[in-house]
Amino acid sequence: MKATILHAPGDIRLDEVPDPVLVAPTDALVRVTASCVCGSDLWPYRGINDVAEPTRIGHEFVGIVEEVGAEVRSLRPGDFVIAPFMYSDNTCPHCRVGIQSRCSHGGFWGGEDRDGAMVDGGQGEYVRVPLADGTLVSTREVPDDSLIPSLLSLSDVMGTGWHAGVAARVSEGDTVVVVGDGAVGLSGVLAAARMGAERIIAMSRHASRQAVARDFGATDIVEVRGDDAVAAVKELTDGVGADAVLECVGTNESMHTAIAAARPGATVGYVGVPHGIEYPVRDMFVRNVGIAGGIAPARQYLPQLRDEVLAGAINPGAVFDLELPLTEVAEAYAAMDERRAIKSLLRP
Amino acid sequence: MKATILHAPGDIRLDEVPDPVLVAPTDALVRVTASCVCGSDLWPYRGINDVAEPTRIGHEFVGIVEEVGAEVRSLRPGDFVIAPFMYSDNTCPHCRVGIQSRCSHGGFWGGEDRDGAMVDGGQGEYVRVPLADGTLVSTREVPDDSLIPSLLSLSDVMGTGWHAGVAARVSEGDTVVVVGDGAVGLSGVLAAARMGAERIIAMSRHASRQAVARDFGATDIVEVRGDDAVAAVKELTDGVGADAVLECVGTNESMHTAIAAARPGATVGYVGVPHGIEYPVRDMFVRNVGIAGGIAPARQYLPQLRDEVLAGAINPGAVFDLELPLTEVAEAYAAMDERRAIKSLLRP
Repeated sequence: MKATILHAPGDIRLDEVPDPVLVAPTDALVRVTASCVCGSDLWPYRGINDVAEPTRIGHEFVGIVEEVGAEVRSLRPGDFVIAPFMYSDNTCPHCRVGIQSRCSHGGFWGGEDRDGAMVDGGQGEYVRVPLADGTLVSTREVPDDSLIPSLLSLSDVMGTGWHAGVAARVSEGDTVVVVGDGAVGLSGVLAAARMGAERIIAMSRHASRQAVARDFGATDIVEVRGDDAVAAVKELTDGVGADAVLECVGTNESMHTAIAAARPGATVGYVGVPHGIEYPVRDMFVRNVGIAGGIAPARQYLPQLRDEVLAGAINPGAVFDLELPLTEVAEAYAAMDERRAIKSLLRP
Repeated sequence: MKATILHAPGDIRLDEVPDPVLVAPTDALVRVTASCVCGSDLWPYRGINDVAEPTRIGHEFVGIVEEVGAEVRSLRPGDFVIAPFMYSDNTCPHCRVGIQSRCSHGGFWGGEDRDGAMVDGGQGEYVRVPLADGTLVSTREVPDDSLIPSLLSLSDVMGTGWHAGVAARVSEGDTVVVVGDGAVGLSGVLAAARMGAERIIAMSRHASRQAVARDFGATDIVEVRGDDAVAAVKELTDGVGADAVLECVGTNESMHTAIAAARPGATVGYVGVPHGIEYPVRDMFVRNVGIAGGIAPARQYLPQLRDEVLAGAINPGAVFDLELPLTEVAEAYAAMDERRAIKSLLRP
């Protein structure tokens, strides 16, 4: 089959690789009908994370079940399934409290499983899915093609934005600040709106992203950064600060902006992978500003968000503004790297 | 009147000072019937915090209202009142969401108020209380003398331990770890028990404190520290970690122990004043361990905890193991400094 391989920073190609086969009786084989490129895929693509050897890549996909192992109970060939960005058994103590991203037997796509068997990346034609019952979430019928972008977004960005909202404890009537206008930040805006936020202040300097943010429910846009952004939030909230803040970037500056924009007693829900963060320990203590979040348990939110997408209640797929055939995966990366696209969707 | 003054590290005396009088129409004058020494009073006493000039000290007291200003509505002379460790108007936006410790018009005892008028410390015969309606919580009748220690503990330590439990989101049936066996940590044990924790693991190396912890509801005691303490918690929880952790010390080691003892998805509720803390950023992200807390809004919890003390449901006053007349305030400090006492209560 064809699968995407990152050979070196900037060198991404669709290569011929061995067809995957079932290895464990809990595996399923999925034919990928849509996948996409994540902001986090850009870290190794840009060389910020090491690329020691050619690596399978991609961790967001939907598709059709082709074959299941003897112990798979909840799926059968022909089912349409959504894969979260990590696989998990959904039965261990961490999964049972909803932290599937820390599953005792789970892991990431594009590496080796705990038995040393290859786990495919999502940006390919087929994927062997370990722990299929715990990992995949199916729909009753194969959904209409127009819903694919929104269902695919539940693999990662929408589940991650939702997690930021849950972690920040967004409640009905809240004033919410969202730091970050990437696909996750925009999904965070949609999550906050769906959770009943009355006012959503999105930080964005890009007209196209501002437009999506407004579509998703942002009521105010702040175009400045750092202290100026905090001052703008204070001005919009009578000097009080936000009831909840979603941090969807992960840099030291964005985290400090998020914490400073939070009102006393508020929580910053963060999902941006931390890069060089030093928390303002004393300020957080004096103002009772908490932080919560981390690698999103996308699996936890999948059934609920799937139902909301199928019901037409949310359209998180609007974050995709570029669609390409899998053969043009290199352009899908380049467009995101050069900020010509918010998020690229790939079809076989 | 007589009031306690810290002249220099280790030099604490009961001195003659001017009698306080009402300054603002929102003031009340309170005759102190019991006060106490706080672990945080030991920071300047030990010279760890600067003592630039002789300073009034003490921020925990109960007493009888002697006189009220013309605008005081909820109190009258003769009322028994409990003072939280900060004064607050209880009407500003921060107070309204329960963060009275960040009141727009509030402040600490033993300094100057926002108009530059002297605010007495709690370890004296009388205190002028600013914003009396917002600050003081009264009882319907003057309570029995045996209840005074428990009511006094609501000024700070019990409210602070309670805040740690609220911040850590302790729920019915939880396994909770409490780091710290000072009066606040012990109060945290009591709070966790009252919040329905099924199992409470108290970290303590002192027999007398372990006894109070067990009285308050601790089911397990861990006597080791650091990595060994984390290993002990993991062993007690089948490798999972605690559902909620209360951090009641404030050092880097204690915070790292608290975070490492938390299961994925849990929150560390912290109330120890941070000294030299550097958070383990990556571990918190990977395991979804949040932190929440800060300077406790003791005022928020006072009415509820007062009722629980008056009903005999909790006895947080058990943290006091030394009672002295105010004239022996120097010994009250020395006993705590030398760890001969958990907490010293002072009567006029």
